Amino acid sequence: MKVICFGEIMLRLSPPNNLRMAQARSLDVQYGGSEANVAVALAQFGAESAFVTRVPDNVVGRSSLGELKKYGVDTSLTQFGGSRLGLYYLEVGAGNRSSKVVYDREGSGMATLQKGIIDWRSIFKDATWFHWSGITPAISESAAEATLEAIEVANELGLTVSCDLNYRSNLWQYGKKPSQIMPQLLRGCSVMLGDGDTIDTYFEIKGSNYKEVFEKTFEAFPKLKYIAMTARRAFHATHNTYKGFLHNGTTLFESKEYDVPDIIDRIGAGDAFMGGLIYCLQKNAPPQYCVEFSAATGALKHSIHSDFHLATAAEVENLMGGNTGGKVSR
Amino acid sequence: MKVICFGEIMLRLSPPNNLRMAQARSLDVQYGGSEANVAVALAQFGAESAFVTRVPDNVVGRSSLGELKKYGVDTSLTQFGGSRLGLYYLEVGAGNRSSKVVYDREGSGMATLQKGIIDWRSIFKDATWFHWSGITPAISESAAEATLEAIEVANELGLTVSCDLNYRSNLWQYGKKPSQIMPQLLRGCSVMLGDGDTIDTYFEIKGSNYKEVFEKTFEAFPKLKYIAMTARRAFHATHNTYKGFLHNGTTLFESKEYDVPDIIDRIGAGDAFMGGLIYCLQKNAPPQYCVEFSAATGALKHSIHSDFHLATAAEVENLMGGNTGGKVSR
Amino acid sequence: MKVICFGEIMLRLSPPNNLRMAQARSLDVQYGGSEANVAVALAQFGAESAFVTRVPDNVVGRSSLGELKKYGVDTSLTQFGGSRLGLYYLEVGAGNRSSKVVYDREGSGMATLQKGIIDWRSIFKDATWFHWSGITPAISESAAEATLEAIEVANELGLTVSCDLNYRSNLWQYGKKPSQIMPQLLRGCSVMLGDGDTIDTYFEIKGSNYKEVFEKTFEAFPKLKYIAMTARRAFHATHNTYKGFLHNGTTLFESKEYDVPDIIDRIGAGDAFMGGLIYCLQKNAPPQYCVEFSAATGALKHSIHSDFHLATAAEVENLMGGNTGGKVSR
Amino acid sequence: MKVICFGEIMLRLSPPNNLRMAQARSLDVQYGGSEANVAVALAQFGAESAFVTRVPDNVVGRSSLGELKKYGVDTSLTQFGGSRLGLYYLEVGAGNRSSKVVYDREGSGMATLQKGIIDWRSIFKDATWFHWSGITPAISESAAEATLEAIEVANELGLTVSCDLNYRSNLWQYGKKPSQIMPQLLRGCSVMLGDGDTIDTYFEIKGSNYKEVFEKTFEAFPKLKYIAMTARRAFHATHNTYKGFLHNGTTLFESKEYDVPDIIDRIGAGDAFMGGLIYCLQKNAPPQYCVEFSAATGALKHSIHSDFHLATAAEVENLMGGNTGGKVSR
Amino acid sequence: MKVICFGEIMLRLSPPNNLRMAQARSLDVQYGGSEANVAVALAQFGAESAFVTRVPDNVVGRSSLGELKKYGVDTSLTQFGGSRLGLYYLEVGAGNRSSKVVYDREGSGMATLQKGIIDWRSIFKDATWFHWSGITPAISESAAEATLEAIEVANELGLTVSCDLNYRSNLWQYGKKPSQIMPQLLRGCSVMLGDGDTIDTYFEIKGSNYKEVFEKTFEAFPKLKYIAMTARRAFHATHNTYKGFLHNGTTLFESKEYDVPDIIDRIGAGDAFMGGLIYCLQKNAPPQYCVEFSAATGALKHSIHSDFHLATAAEVENLMGGNTGGKVSR
Amino acid sequence: MKVICFGEIMLRLSPPNNLRMAQARSLDVQYGGSEANVAVALAQFGAESAFVTRVPDNVVGRSSLGELKKYGVDTSLTQFGGSRLGLYYLEVGAGNRSSKVVYDREGSGMATLQKGIIDWRSIFKDATWFHWSGITPAISESAAEATLEAIEVANELGLTVSCDLNYRSNLWQYGKKPSQIMPQLLRGCSVMLGDGDTIDTYFEIKGSNYKEVFEKTFEAFPKLKYIAMTARRAFHATHNTYKGFLHNGTTLFESKEYDVPDIIDRIGAGDAFMGGLIYCLQKNAPPQYCVEFSAATGALKHSIHSDFHLATAAEVENLMGGNTGGKVSR
Repeated sequence: MKVICFGEIMLRLSPPNNLRMAQARSLDVQYGGSEANVAVALAQFGAESAFVTRVPDNVVGRSSLGELKKYGVDTSLTQFGGSRLGLYYLEVGAGNRSSKVVYDREGSGMATLQKGIIDWRSIFKDATWFHWSGITPAISESAAEATLEAIEVANELGLTVSCDLNYRSNLWQYGKKPSQIMPQLLRGCSVMLGDGDTIDTYFEIKGSNYKEVFEKTFEAFPKLKYIAMTARRAFHATHNTYKGFLHNGTTLFESKEYDVPDIIDRIGAGDAFMGGLIYCLQKNAPPQYCVEFSAATGALKHSIHSDFHLATAAEVENLMGGNTGGKVSR
Repeated sequence: MKVICFGEIMLRLSPPNNLRMAQARSLDVQYGGSEANVAVALAQFGAESAFVTRVPDNVVGRSSLGELKKYGVDTSLTQFGGSRLGLYYLEVGAGNRSSKVVYDREGSGMATLQKGIIDWRSIFKDATWFHWSGITPAISESAAEATLEAIEVANELGLTVSCDLNYRSNLWQYGKKPSQIMPQLLRGCSVMLGDGDTIDTYFEIKGSNYKEVFEKTFEAFPKLKYIAMTARRAFHATHNTYKGFLHNGTTLFESKEYDVPDIIDRIGAGDAFMGGLIYCLQKNAPPQYCVEFSAATGALKHSIHSDFHLATAAEVENLMGGNTGGKVSR
Repeated sequence: MKVICFGEIMLRLSPPNNLRMAQARSLDVQYGGSEANVAVALAQFGAESAFVTRVPDNVVGRSSLGELKKYGVDTSLTQFGGSRLGLYYLEVGAGNRSSKVVYDREGSGMATLQKGIIDWRSIFKDATWFHWSGITPAISESAAEATLEAIEVANELGLTVSCDLNYRSNLWQYGKKPSQIMPQLLRGCSVMLGDGDTIDTYFEIKGSNYKEVFEKTFEAFPKLKYIAMTARRAFHATHNTYKGFLHNGTTLFESKEYDVPDIIDRIGAGDAFMGGLIYCLQKNAPPQYCVEFSAATGALKHSIHSDFHLATAAEVENLMGGNTGGKVSR
Repeated sequence: MKVICFGEIMLRLSPPNNLRMAQARSLDVQYGGSEANVAVALAQFGAESAFVTRVPDNVVGRSSLGELKKYGVDTSLTQFGGSRLGLYYLEVGAGNRSSKVVYDREGSGMATLQKGIIDWRSIFKDATWFHWSGITPAISESAAEATLEAIEVANELGLTVSCDLNYRSNLWQYGKKPSQIMPQLLRGCSVMLGDGDTIDTYFEIKGSNYKEVFEKTFEAFPKLKYIAMTARRAFHATHNTYKGFLHNGTTLFESKEYDVPDIIDRIGAGDAFMGGLIYCLQKNAPPQYCVEFSAATGALKHSIHSDFHLATAAEVENLMGGNTGGKVSR
Repeated sequence: MKVICFGEIMLRLSPPNNLRMAQARSLDVQYGGSEANVAVALAQFGAESAFVTRVPDNVVGRSSLGELKKYGVDTSLTQFGGSRLGLYYLEVGAGNRSSKVVYDREGSGMATLQKGIIDWRSIFKDATWFHWSGITPAISESAAEATLEAIEVANELGLTVSCDLNYRSNLWQYGKKPSQIMPQLLRGCSVMLGDGDTIDTYFEIKGSNYKEVFEKTFEAFPKLKYIAMTARRAFHATHNTYKGFLHNGTTLFESKEYDVPDIIDRIGAGDAFMGGLIYCLQKNAPPQYCVEFSAATGALKHSIHSDFHLATAAEVENLMGGNTGGKVSR
Repeated sequence: MKVICFGEIMLRLSPPNNLRMAQARSLDVQYGGSEANVAVALAQFGAESAFVTRVPDNVVGRSSLGELKKYGVDTSLTQFGGSRLGLYYLEVGAGNRSSKVVYDREGSGMATLQKGIIDWRSIFKDATWFHWSGITPAISESAAEATLEAIEVANELGLTVSCDLNYRSNLWQYGKKPSQIMPQLLRGCSVMLGDGDTIDTYFEIKGSNYKEVFEKTFEAFPKLKYIAMTARRAFHATHNTYKGFLHNGTTLFESKEYDVPDIIDRIGAGDAFMGGLIYCLQKNAPPQYCVEFSAATGALKHSIHSDFHLATAAEVENLMGGNTGGKVSR
């Protein structure tokens, strides 16, 4: 049981202590990216995961890999190349001030990745699952082609393929619309995380509610077995609620809704959810358990600095069991 | 359109991370003062502002000016003099513990400022607005005289004059009561920020509610065109509500009330409000817009470390438009 | 009026800014322990207090004493000995993530303390009160014997003796159950802080509610004059409520319940309560005042980094008087 | 007397306390670039300086300008544009470990700058001096063209033009060799900072020693009046010596050689030297004074964190006068 | 054997990591003052010491006392009064950049101290030694009178009196010259630390070398038994040499000269020397040992952050014995 | 080519910025141990290395493994057990103040390790080299037995075995002298790092110089092929020299001697040397190259925070080639 996650990892730079960028004399360092975050969540749960990416062979690229290795992710499959590691600036909001992200990811190794560079057959040798997200095909046309290649080989070799739709409106700059690219990619997937608006943008499927949208999506993509979604009510930068949904083609399962106050870091909550979902599906857990575990993972993530979900399965289960933080663990 | 703000700037020293003074091995450095804060808010909104003050010509005085310049305030009109920069210690509270301020501002350059030292005619050359606050006349009798001089010249040259009443009970130590000094100063002003209690202390005007007090104040000071006020409900050090009022002589306008949780720094919220108000009035915005923009500025300020309001007009409008922090800006 | 507190002091190491242990490149340093915390609270209130312990004569042991001296506790009665200072790791939780404590206290100076080493007669010379907690007899059988010795001498010399039951399930490893040790120790005490579950564990006294349990305890231990208890509702790691109870053998007094949001550090809240209680009882304050003051101390403690309650009696009274943090103190 | 400096400003990110990149959990923030550094040095000396550049209109680009304004540089002439602020990573060495720079500056606003975008006539209106360096023409062909345009207008308007040759071997990637571009640019300059190797690379002028090289350069570029050079002996990352040379076409002047131990930050030393030189030449100081002042500025820079030379002319003169740091200034 | 040290304690604020004041976003906190530093050195050596001063009764004044208590100094004799704690800013130099001190001590509690406020008889009850320095009489005339009063009572009660001449040219602003005040004060002293220039300034005693000056001083002040002096060669801010001299009226003893590279903090080195000297003289150690121990203390102080000498007598002896830092202590 | 390193890893806690323990409000976190340090150096050079140890299964033990994984060491062979991770406190000296280490390692997982717990046959499956040090047999008799077991299996399976003698006088507390344990262990080794004094302590071999001692050691232990030694002259805590020696049974090779100023961290220099030596010997490099590479590694280590040698082989070769830090790498 080994999950291959494929995508871009970036340096994340944030002013400490909720400072604004102009005030910062130092920037806190994290490394993250949607698919890398999934790999870390899986490794924290004790699952075997590997991250496939393309980073420059310098101290910045190597540091991003070191951080993944530290948390148990296999990075031995990395392609070195490209001239820079993409990065993003994050001003962490509080109360009535939103968090603010400024991307600086042009020209990274993933943007210039091309079909044929990565030997997917060898990478998938011991693997059972392949995970990608809608960010990679949004970076460049050649990256979209490389993604398609990976999905096709994964299908050929019998891996389960999952996708987080992850729409970023500031990407998709290379002249193709998502609806020209994404349907073909989703065709090889059996697990999808997404919401109604993104499904509309990617696949031009509409409906009067998300349940209907999911059902139409199942029809359009016969290989799909599971559609998951997360929902938050966002009162303030530091106070949200969080819950999850999972449709198995037949039934829509909902998790309890978590109150999420005193948020430390909401970046990566969806990736944590995805990691929880893959972890549960791999173990053939019942759908209700899957959605509860995934939602608790996503909710717990809000209390952890970094893009990564750094908590064990036991800690997730502790929250599922009702300890919403009030009981000191000794 | 250039606003001249006149007052004292101080070094602010706070233990980091909500520590108490006795625990601190370092103190966070900010610079601030009511009128300087107004100047910064205006500059952040893209308005032209200058700050007139008197600071010692040493590394501490010069650093206070550098911080203003960084945020776009013109400090070229500074008078150098006096032997020390005033300062204040701030223990930042949380939950049930109040924030605590200890002033150490005696003997600063502003305290020994005298009428005739500053060439107001030259300073006001390109300016359209003059802003001062009730702190300066509270420091020393000579500073009160210098303030009066400035107001008179400003009136002569046709500038709009605004005042934040800003009562500090631990000042006014030089043998005069506010009611002996302030009426004369307010006479030259057309915009005032204050509340009922301070109006009583300064002008001995009472009323059964603030609307009535405002109306009597308009009567007593015929030049006055606008009276503004802010109100907060303060549940805890880190949780308040915030709203604003603006009376234009005819009608009392109220802003929406903001819930303000997870407060980072409430110092300077009133100054941010004042900056928002001058910014809107200068642009002849309608009163309801003025009070909404000013209140949103004050509410947003609570999420920003420092005395200064470091956010753009677009960010204020984002909050006015209903994004109370919950939506990440990408 | 001098209070002798007896127990173990530990180095406390926590990742800064709510980080997890694996993320930490530095650990914040505090020193604390239940009985030392009581001594500090008393000293902050202006009462005379001394702390009796056994620490190694090295830079770590001596640093723990320096921190106590800084806050006004007399440490001149310290026994030097043992090879290490016990320590504990604390991951500070937030929102839905619980705080997590990992103890590393085996082999400390207190664990190898033996009856006869400490000259209690000389230590108690100027003292009027002796305080200990259920942690010391839980460490080792010889430490339990040393505690009994101290209680007996204190009784002989007419000191008031107080005890915080303080059950730690991960201690009591030396082959005796609490119920074999604690009854004999409590016999010499007139003030006790504890809750129903611990009373059951230590003294095998059960009841249908805590009032009944307290009454049975008064019966079983005739020397007891006061039983106190604290109660919290713990919604999240950073949001609790807090209140206190005090039974004087006749009547059960309850404090108001405090809302405790935006918690900075809840470790030591019970010790702060205990310090408040001893402070009030020493001054013969009325029971209702005692429980209100103690509960406000405990509630206020949540806003202070460190095991120690670093706030004055005036600050506690400010909270009792209704300023739940919202009013800046200038 | 106003100096216009033209070039690129970058975000500089360095691990604190000499850590290696892989160890860093935060990166210290500075902003710098050869020509911006010159502008800051001039402003610190009390000279009027402005910096002309092209940065993106986002929080990162604006923060770089704020830092320049703080230190007195006029940034009102900035062109906003481009999608990212270039940056560089700096591992600060010590002892036997070299400092290490990794550039990440592709795609910045300066790289896409084109001739005709900047209105040089308006920029040069009040100015007397124009400074540029060999970095700008190395970035892109269009940036080289924009530089030529600026030099031509400056000459037309009678400004003195200075150039720091500043060879960066990892630039010049756009298909032209320096020797195809630089001669034409230098033709309009009267002050040049450079060394023999760079003169060879740029102008294909060789000689048996630098004096001879300088003389041949004067011959080749008749407008040139001054050639300056710095020299260091670099024993370790934290221990160098530093001295300067200045040839006025007739005579070669040499400064004293400074021992430079316990180096804090050697980045920007050459720019500090250049700032000192422009400052002195503007004041028509004698050549020996010019080279002594410039060399002392460069030597002093090694003791200051950041790319910027943050010290006054009085502090430079203090070092020139023989106080090599040993006397505390009170 | 208890030493009473009398003087002013100040808050010391320094930018971290050798930053300049304008760069600092936080300031490192230390507390210090010449006589307090002596008290701390003595306490670290295991001697009993107390510090007598006058500070305001607020969180800043109390924090300064807490720091002294932490290091073992008795502060129970403090007078509370005055409105502010004096402070000084310290930019810590390196290499060719000098450290820079900016005092801000006007209006402190010591400046307004008056004769008769302090009950010296009660303070000196258990004491054997009284130490003061030339800073206190330089602050104000009333402080000079209070110092004289203390010296007279100390003499009457048979205490040994020591003085560090400690000339500060920026003090002595109250209209008296040192030579009008100091002779009378020195008359009651038997141990003095000073150098030739200060002896000239204070007592108008000149000589062709310091030995001769010392001999004339012994003649002029018959009660004097010891004159000590320190000498440094200051190559750079971070590299000095250090040695000490002690004249016992008969013979001049010299210590070895220490090479002092990689200086962390030279502030307080003279006070450390003084503390070492009192410690040795109190124990009647031979003069050569006294001067060696004192010089090693002063040399070692350069390696310790803070005004305080935080090292044990054993650590000083380790340096005296030849371990100049190269041998790790395990 | 895979090297198995076996030993204890500890948490290392040091006050930041050369503070003393009593001053520290936080402690910098590193993890290290002689054999783990060797494994990291090898991984940084690109060699395959694994670390075998026994740590508790809690956040502290797991964090120590994370740090090793980050730097490329295989930790999948770890035994979980024991109740605590050993630790040590390090006060980092400077100038004339020595660094100071306080160990707190009793009761760790390695101390209670026993023969038979580790399946050496499986661990050595793909390995070619086994490295241990004299620290493990010094911890407890059972750890010594486990070491012997490992050496015997390694010999049986044909691995090269290396040993760093690493004498710690504060260990060896379990009733056996080194000379009763170490000879038997060394018998199975072919590479040894040690010095004359330790050879005497362990094997009772004496000689008039180290060359003679080495020759006698070769005689006594016929399996030995290489004896290496390092030598430093330690002028101050922050200034040493460093060189290496290597005897191949026939000839004694010496490296150049490095001047090592401005030391950041000398802990682990010997382990870095050992890592360099194994790396070179594995590649069958000539002895002179081996000793030069190893000495340069050890010298370079002094410039790197942490126990670990975090530099590549290319960086070591850069130093060997004469760049002693003075040339910035761009």
